[in-house]
Amino acid sequence: VNDAATKHLFDNRYGTGQSTIDGVIRATDMLIAGKRVVVAGSGWCGKGVAARARGMGAKVIVTEVDAVRALEAAMDGLEVMTMKEAAKIGDLFITLTGDMHVIAKEHLQVMKNGAVICNSGHFDIEIDLKSLKKLAVKEEKNVRNFVDAYTLRGGRKIYLLGEGRLVNLAAAEGHPASVMDMSFATQALASEWAVKNQNTLTPKVYEVPSAVENWVAKLKLASMGIRIDSLTKDQEKYLSSWAHGT
Amino acid sequence: VNDAATKHLFDNRYGTGQSTIDGVIRATDMLIAGKRVVVAGSGWCGKGVAARARGMGAKVIVTEVDAVRALEAAMDGLEVMTMKEAAKIGDLFITLTGDMHVIAKEHLQVMKNGAVICNSGHFDIEIDLKSLKKLAVKEEKNVRNFVDAYTLRGGRKIYLLGEGRLVNLAAAEGHPASVMDMSFATQALASEWAVKNQNTLTPKVYEVPSAVENWVAKLKLASMGIRIDSLTKDQEKYLSSWAHGT
Amino acid sequence: VNDAATKHLFDNRYGTGQSTIDGVIRATDMLIAGKRVVVAGSGWCGKGVAARARGMGAKVIVTEVDAVRALEAAMDGLEVMTMKEAAKIGDLFITLTGDMHVIAKEHLQVMKNGAVICNSGHFDIEIDLKSLKKLAVKEEKNVRNFVDAYTLRGGRKIYLLGEGRLVNLAAAEGHPASVMDMSFATQALASEWAVKNQNTLTPKVYEVPSAVENWVAKLKLASMGIRIDSLTKDQEKYLSSWAHGT
Amino acid sequence: VNDAATKHLFDNRYGTGQSTIDGVIRATDMLIAGKRVVVAGSGWCGKGVAARARGMGAKVIVTEVDAVRALEAAMDGLEVMTMKEAAKIGDLFITLTGDMHVIAKEHLQVMKNGAVICNSGHFDIEIDLKSLKKLAVKEEKNVRNFVDAYTLRGGRKIYLLGEGRLVNLAAAEGHPASVMDMSFATQALASEWAVKNQNTLTPKVYEVPSAVENWVAKLKLASMGIRIDSLTKDQEKYLSSWAHGT
Repeated sequence: VNDAATKHLFDNRYGTGQSTIDGVIRATDMLIAGKRVVVAGSGWCGKGVAARARGMGAKVIVTEVDAVRALEAAMDGLEVMTMKEAAKIGDLFITLTGDMHVIAKEHLQVMKNGAVICNSGHFDIEIDLKSLKKLAVKEEKNVRNFVDAYTLRGGRKIYLLGEGRLVNLAAAEGHPASVMDMSFATQALASEWAVKNQNTLTPKVYEVPSAVENWVAKLKLASMGIRIDSLTKDQEKYLSSWAHGT
Repeated sequence: VNDAATKHLFDNRYGTGQSTIDGVIRATDMLIAGKRVVVAGSGWCGKGVAARARGMGAKVIVTEVDAVRALEAAMDGLEVMTMKEAAKIGDLFITLTGDMHVIAKEHLQVMKNGAVICNSGHFDIEIDLKSLKKLAVKEEKNVRNFVDAYTLRGGRKIYLLGEGRLVNLAAAEGHPASVMDMSFATQALASEWAVKNQNTLTPKVYEVPSAVENWVAKLKLASMGIRIDSLTKDQEKYLSSWAHGT
Repeated sequence: VNDAATKHLFDNRYGTGQSTIDGVIRATDMLIAGKRVVVAGSGWCGKGVAARARGMGAKVIVTEVDAVRALEAAMDGLEVMTMKEAAKIGDLFITLTGDMHVIAKEHLQVMKNGAVICNSGHFDIEIDLKSLKKLAVKEEKNVRNFVDAYTLRGGRKIYLLGEGRLVNLAAAEGHPASVMDMSFATQALASEWAVKNQNTLTPKVYEVPSAVENWVAKLKLASMGIRIDSLTKDQEKYLSSWAHGT
Repeated sequence: VNDAATKHLFDNRYGTGQSTIDGVIRATDMLIAGKRVVVAGSGWCGKGVAARARGMGAKVIVTEVDAVRALEAAMDGLEVMTMKEAAKIGDLFITLTGDMHVIAKEHLQVMKNGAVICNSGHFDIEIDLKSLKKLAVKEEKNVRNFVDAYTLRGGRKIYLLGEGRLVNLAAAEGHPASVMDMSFATQALASEWAVKNQNTLTPKVYEVPSAVENWVAKLKLASMGIRIDSLTKDQEKYLSSWAHGT
């Protein structure tokens, strides 16, 4: 169910986008406008966070390992560079890659004094916390709620939010209610569909059927007071003849 | 000092922009993306809130009494209409006009069920609270923190945030620290300037001298690691000859 | 090859986005800022045009038949409605659906005086030109280059660009050179791949192998002076162990 | 009349914004998305060009000599730096400062191969053309319409658009018609006002009276089908009492 388009698009992109920025602001009370915000990972979650950070006036920098995604970010007007380059200039770092140690020792070593680091992706493994602790000559817990300060040799301070756990769950309220509705609806309907089709389903992982997705999206549009077009018979015929090459 | 450009631009526009959206999200946990957000007033504060709401994915509607400001908002791609039209379709209303009863009885009467109203402008007078209370058949205080629910005849509910007081002070932390720094700096420097020039100043209201403003802006830029150009001698000469018509 | 991600993302989205707006401006010299621009279809091309129209200051309205795409547009802060509703308020209409008669008789009948209609999607079939000609009491060809004026009963004028053919080819120069490079590169490399693998390929339609796509994207990034991260061995191992459920 | 708000806001910001980008695209057919566009000057014209370049997907860099304007650009999420830094990384340079030699010899010397330079500000003096010619070992006129190529020692090419004259007049059609309407209206009405008040006017430069501006803006709004609010009597009274400190 995590692969459903409604989940990807709405839960991850819009929900995570808003709640991550919300979590950062609650934890730090920092002004996002004018800051260099480094977003590690440009999947749906990363795209959502990048869009919202930009919408709050940040200069967004994207780091990626996938060339197609990196190019997409660049063509959307975002800065794209390696984490090693970004580490030196970022004010706020948010990881959303699903991988480990995206912020590693070599990055922590070159960060500016006052840099804020947090994770909104995957457990607490995206930031190399062990290295952070080793590099630190002083560790102050909860200088604000959800904010720990690490003083490195030389005096630079790095602020870690929510102990590296998901910042939108730690410092904010997680996904907004109106987004969760959609995820739950998709899950409920997908389960119903699976039960109804249990005799014909062999035991493997199924994608959420697009009919279910479509239905959830229609319900959501209706709840927003939005009506959309339907294909006329002629249009359906045209599309289908074209698809079939006649 | 409230008229200083640094105050207008930075405190009002960027500070109020972020903190107002922050206040709304903390109070309601609503997803801003896809919502119709009605921003009453398009001064610096209103412009800031409109920009941030849009940056969070809202469809922003602006109401204004000043034609030049209204036209500017329209040319920036925002919807502009009367509050009477906006009242019927808005999901979230934020007033920042400095005037009274911008959301009046006639507007409350036509709002959708679930509409959220709040103020980020001026005391608690921008929303006609007396009319709201008179229209309500039921009043529930604190259905969430900072949220009161008013049920109107027919069953529609309207949610009032922070009792109509400044939502960024009520439900959030007011202006982010990094913006306040600038306002305080401007005030401090302006006071210093006034003291130094007290023998030559007659008792009236002075604008913050632009040299002070410029200096504060330069300090802020420096703190952001940003260097800017200076005029060369030739450029200064050219500008000045041109200004003098020679 | 038309389904390659690099083609979709870059040729369609960025190329069509810019060249369509370019075509409209060259043909009409209209100011886009403040106009209601109706974009029919929210596939890659439609998304690209919507983003660029918005970037020029338009109030963008999206029409769609697919509920998930419609919801995505709404959550991105765009207006979404039926063409019947949009027809009454649009200043400029651009079709990019790949289907026929997206602007049909019933829509032409309710358009405002001065409405501009054009197509950037698929042949000249997206606008119902026969109905337009039947509705017109007067037809003026080339009132400007690439602009025909149709006067309807009652005196309203509708302006058709490029005779309903692709406006970015008719009135502008088609895709910018720097985008076409990428499409051509993808095609060339895909052909090379097909030739190299001809002994193992059975005759059917193949998707462009993602290795080719990735390579094209990397070349493009390099040409833009952009370097990106690579996975470390530990990161690869982590991802792969996680993917395999161990 | 050049100082009227309607002129500043609409002619300069929206007109110049669109027509400058339009001129560049017509002259070069370059894809703006993903490019580093350096905008020299952040007055109304520069703000307009920066907004539109960003709207087309560019990474915008602003250069300024005024600290308050520079800070405003930075807080809006744009890169701000000196021209010396920008010169090394820009793909496209647009000057709109009203001053001379904003792109000077030292900048031309460090530009990348393929850099495009143009002016949309003030005569042909903003780019130091003499230095460009001296630095060039080869000069090719009209490699495309309105594009001259200068090959510097070492083989780098710099492309100059419209011979350094206003690129929106050279390569495009100048301001879109719908913007010029407003400027002409303001001028006509201001002249009328001057004639009517000629007995009471002493001979000096007058600002366009704000009543005239307001009226032009209202006419424009009406032509766009937009209605706005008016102050109620109570609101007027409140504002005026507040202004008067009672």
